[in-house]
Amino acid sequence: MRLQVSNPPNRTTRKVKNIEKTEHSIGIDLGGTDIKAGLVSSVGDISCRVVVPTDVETGGPQVVASRIAEAVRQVLVKVETQDGNSHQPTADSHSCKIGVGLGSPGLIIAETGVVHFSPNFPGWTDIPLVTYVNAALAKLQPLKKYKPILRGMDNDVNAMTLGELHHGAGVGYNNLVALTLGTGVGGGVVIDGEVYHGSQNTAGELGHTVVEPDGRYCGCGNQGCLEAYAGAKNIVERIQEKITAGRSTTLATATNAGTTLTPRMIAEAAQAGDALAIEIFAETGRYIGIALTSIAHILNPQIAIIGGGIAEAGEKLLFEPIRAELSKRAMDIPGQVKIVKAHLGNDAGIVGAAMLALEGSLK
Amino acid sequence: MRLQVSNPPNRTTRKVKNIEKTEHSIGIDLGGTDIKAGLVSSVGDISCRVVVPTDVETGGPQVVASRIAEAVRQVLVKVETQDGNSHQPTADSHSCKIGVGLGSPGLIIAETGVVHFSPNFPGWTDIPLVTYVNAALAKLQPLKKYKPILRGMDNDVNAMTLGELHHGAGVGYNNLVALTLGTGVGGGVVIDGEVYHGSQNTAGELGHTVVEPDGRYCGCGNQGCLEAYAGAKNIVERIQEKITAGRSTTLATATNAGTTLTPRMIAEAAQAGDALAIEIFAETGRYIGIALTSIAHILNPQIAIIGGGIAEAGEKLLFEPIRAELSKRAMDIPGQVKIVKAHLGNDAGIVGAAMLALEGSLK
Repeated sequence: MRLQVSNPPNRTTRKVKNIEKTEHSIGIDLGGTDIKAGLVSSVGDISCRVVVPTDVETGGPQVVASRIAEAVRQVLVKVETQDGNSHQPTADSHSCKIGVGLGSPGLIIAETGVVHFSPNFPGWTDIPLVTYVNAALAKLQPLKKYKPILRGMDNDVNAMTLGELHHGAGVGYNNLVALTLGTGVGGGVVIDGEVYHGSQNTAGELGHTVVEPDGRYCGCGNQGCLEAYAGAKNIVERIQEKITAGRSTTLATATNAGTTLTPRMIAEAAQAGDALAIEIFAETGRYIGIALTSIAHILNPQIAIIGGGIAEAGEKLLFEPIRAELSKRAMDIPGQVKIVKAHLGNDAGIVGAAMLALEGSLK
Repeated sequence: MRLQVSNPPNRTTRKVKNIEKTEHSIGIDLGGTDIKAGLVSSVGDISCRVVVPTDVETGGPQVVASRIAEAVRQVLVKVETQDGNSHQPTADSHSCKIGVGLGSPGLIIAETGVVHFSPNFPGWTDIPLVTYVNAALAKLQPLKKYKPILRGMDNDVNAMTLGELHHGAGVGYNNLVALTLGTGVGGGVVIDGEVYHGSQNTAGELGHTVVEPDGRYCGCGNQGCLEAYAGAKNIVERIQEKITAGRSTTLATATNAGTTLTPRMIAEAAQAGDALAIEIFAETGRYIGIALTSIAHILNPQIAIIGGGIAEAGEKLLFEPIRAELSKRAMDIPGQVKIVKAHLGNDAGIVGAAMLALEGSLK
């Protein structure tokens, strides 16, 4: 049954609590390999970008904290050498404080800046990263104008969600979910204009929505999570299994030559008309649509933002199957959730981290 | 992997925004057959209960509104004849206003008191029930002391969730979900101490979490919703199918004699050791556990409250299989959600409706 809805979706201006709109800040996207950083303006533009290695192998959390401080230093050196640049922060000539925000993989206690645990940083348990980073920032060679301070920290996917909310596909919406399709499948939930953390900072694990209860095993140990179908590794495994089972595909030549497939290779084959590659993306879209049906019934969001490398497969290969599955399954009103591609791409992490600094989540 | 968690669940006092703690109010639980009403004290005690027929067949929404007013009148007559009763409302001698709250099945626009649509009231579309009820209340024979006014209205399951939150199993929690296992499977979501409505008032449809994507058809048209396994009708259908397929059970005698089974009969057979009946409840618990795994990963609630007639099957038959499935599937931290039986039973609807009056959701 399709119902007529008299009220259009409630598309109101989002809340931007505690955000001083004139400030610039520094966003840090902490990864297992690299630290990406940049200066972010109040309208979400990034300048003075730097990338430094994380060096997680060579030391513990304090070494990583010093690498984060180094990234901040390099950003500020760029800022200072670009005097008169329109992106220059409006630093107070006395205090010269500039806020830094950090998105980190793992389970992050946003209020205290503690890394409870992170799959990217083996052995880290309840690491007070904010303390280490601020200590490392304090030890920096004196910078001409600026005193950087870590003011906000969250899980990397929550940071990306915040970036999309304030400066990306989520602008104008209050209630939304975000999915990032990368190696794993991350998620974020926005309730009434704020990222929702749940009772123990683990809300938004949308990649672990169950889509096939007796299905593929997920890295988390559960069977049939969305991630077990839509994560990059899992998409490759699924096509490999079908090739091994004798399905014909233009990709067989590559795999027979020992090349490990990537989602990009599968997407390119699909775009060139390869039936098996098209089928793999259609299945991926179907499972995302099943997860979004559950999510839409539970949360009734206005939009679902889908980003990450796999989302680059695009409208025809991925987004159309997602919408078809949702439309087939969801009740009329929750099923009106708009499925949109993320706008900020790889910049969402830096932009969102800078928003964390503006929000000043750390006490 | 099981992680040690240093922080216990955040069990803080809930917010009770706008609630005047000294007030009594009248709660109305509107059903397709009966209207249940009572006077509810600020600590959630019900007195002066009445039940009147809904009379939905004999007229339209205005007839139902007059039946609701009649229920209110009967409650107030009982109040007035019980002078000196400890539950007597503290009415102001001048205005004598007393708040009324209403829980109604269907999609309710809580802010405006409109029934957008309701499966129990065929043909109702965008009915301004609050206007009709207040008109009917104004037409009541003058009551000695009280002027009742409809101040709050919501979906019946949201009302029950509010009742459990303030006076039942949810006391002391801010972030929770509630499932009611009846003819259908209803749900409610509490975020930061308030029932969450989503962008178009349909949040909390937990019964339509997908648990088996190619599974049983649900009344909503989707395949494999939780309701298609855990609704009363569906539980009966599932055992009937197995009996027809030749599975032996002590219930076969009854079905062969033409008796239609009920969940209570199945529960009694299970309690007496019938293997098939036990299996049916274990399967039901398994599917509830699958849905709660998704919900726990999405929302990370502190507790999940499970009520409704089917929940009477109890710990061994139903709650243990739910917890076992959740424990097997969920990641450590979200999996710590407590699974508890609702405390208020059939009273949750009246108590929650009275809370709606105290919250004064209608503008």
